[in-house]
Amino acid sequence: METTQASTRDRLIAVARDLIYEQGYTATGIAQILEQADAKPGSLYHFFPTKEDLLIAVLESYKELLFPAVMQPVFDQVADPIERIFDVLKGYRQMLLFTEFTKGCPIGNIALELADSHSRIRTLCAENFDGWLDAIRSCLDDASNRLPDTIDRTELASFVLSVMEGAVMQARAYRMIEPYDAAINQLRDYFNRLLDDATKGSPPASRE
Amino acid sequence: METTQASTRDRLIAVARDLIYEQGYTATGIAQILEQADAKPGSLYHFFPTKEDLLIAVLESYKELLFPAVMQPVFDQVADPIERIFDVLKGYRQMLLFTEFTKGCPIGNIALELADSHSRIRTLCAENFDGWLDAIRSCLDDASNRLPDTIDRTELASFVLSVMEGAVMQARAYRMIEPYDAAINQLRDYFNRLLDDATKGSPPASRE
Repeated sequence: METTQASTRDRLIAVARDLIYEQGYTATGIAQILEQADAKPGSLYHFFPTKEDLLIAVLESYKELLFPAVMQPVFDQVADPIERIFDVLKGYRQMLLFTEFTKGCPIGNIALELADSHSRIRTLCAENFDGWLDAIRSCLDDASNRLPDTIDRTELASFVLSVMEGAVMQARAYRMIEPYDAAINQLRDYFNRLLDDATKGSPPASRE
Repeated sequence: METTQASTRDRLIAVARDLIYEQGYTATGIAQILEQADAKPGSLYHFFPTKEDLLIAVLESYKELLFPAVMQPVFDQVADPIERIFDVLKGYRQMLLFTEFTKGCPIGNIALELADSHSRIRTLCAENFDGWLDAIRSCLDDASNRLPDTIDRTELASFVLSVMEGAVMQARAYRMIEPYDAAINQLRDYFNRLLDDATKGSPPASRE
């Protein structure tokens, strides 16, 4: 039945997830969540005594969704581990275009909006990033024999996340896909140079 | 005199700039701005009929501050154009450490918080990014003979901004400098490879 406790709770989370993704956390009001979820205040407070408790549930749901919704569809289609990374990045490009730049990375939004004031929220953002980084790092591990020995794959995964988040931010500010494409093109060029370097077996670049 | 019209207006902008930087735009209330600026509602509404007008003035002030506050101090200290870029990036590292990760890039925060709903705000964020990109691009132009011909310097400047913004975001979410350092290390490795490539005169990497 649609009106079981479980479904009301799930509906509240799903509605809050969408509204916070669209508007931000502070700008999303409880009344709007109740209206769109067709729920009564009592049932909201039963499941989520505070608005922050609801956001915590939203961030937990993102953690659960990351692999099945973001990674697995790509991994099912693409076998090459490096191409898997670039296909994950292509997913964010499609999201930007499909939503006319109104939606980027939901975790990045929350991380910047609330990192200062809400310690539990910040930790959950970091845990979501952990899941993303683990998936990218596993692709890099699968391609380890094609990368120079000098490359720290944990740092490289972190770099890929930074590039994605910063590129999404710029694309949204400009409402143009060009900054996103520029970042991915440069990241591709960097990967090409790493792959070529490993193929040649030449010593790593060392300057500075 | 401190109480001239000009100084009241400047004080309102400075107070709003700090509060929005710390808390975000939506979370910053008019009452708090008035209290900290020691101003009356009438004078606020005289200069800024809406809260959005005040934010517009804040973003205009960031545009004016970018070169004298962010770029010029680095350019005065460092002559090498590539090192100028990495010294600008070091400035964000120091800001993260100095503020214990509570402050990163004020423009990035606003860009993600408000890009969807406020077209004038979004445009002003983009104009602030334009100024940053122009400064980095001018460094790359000054180093053009040390970079491979195949590199699009406008795209590379955009990439540097994406890396910085994403790395600031991650450092703030984790409250650790490591993700920022990882991103800058990888960017340095990429630059080293570009500089080595141009020195060797070898053909650009071509894969995919």
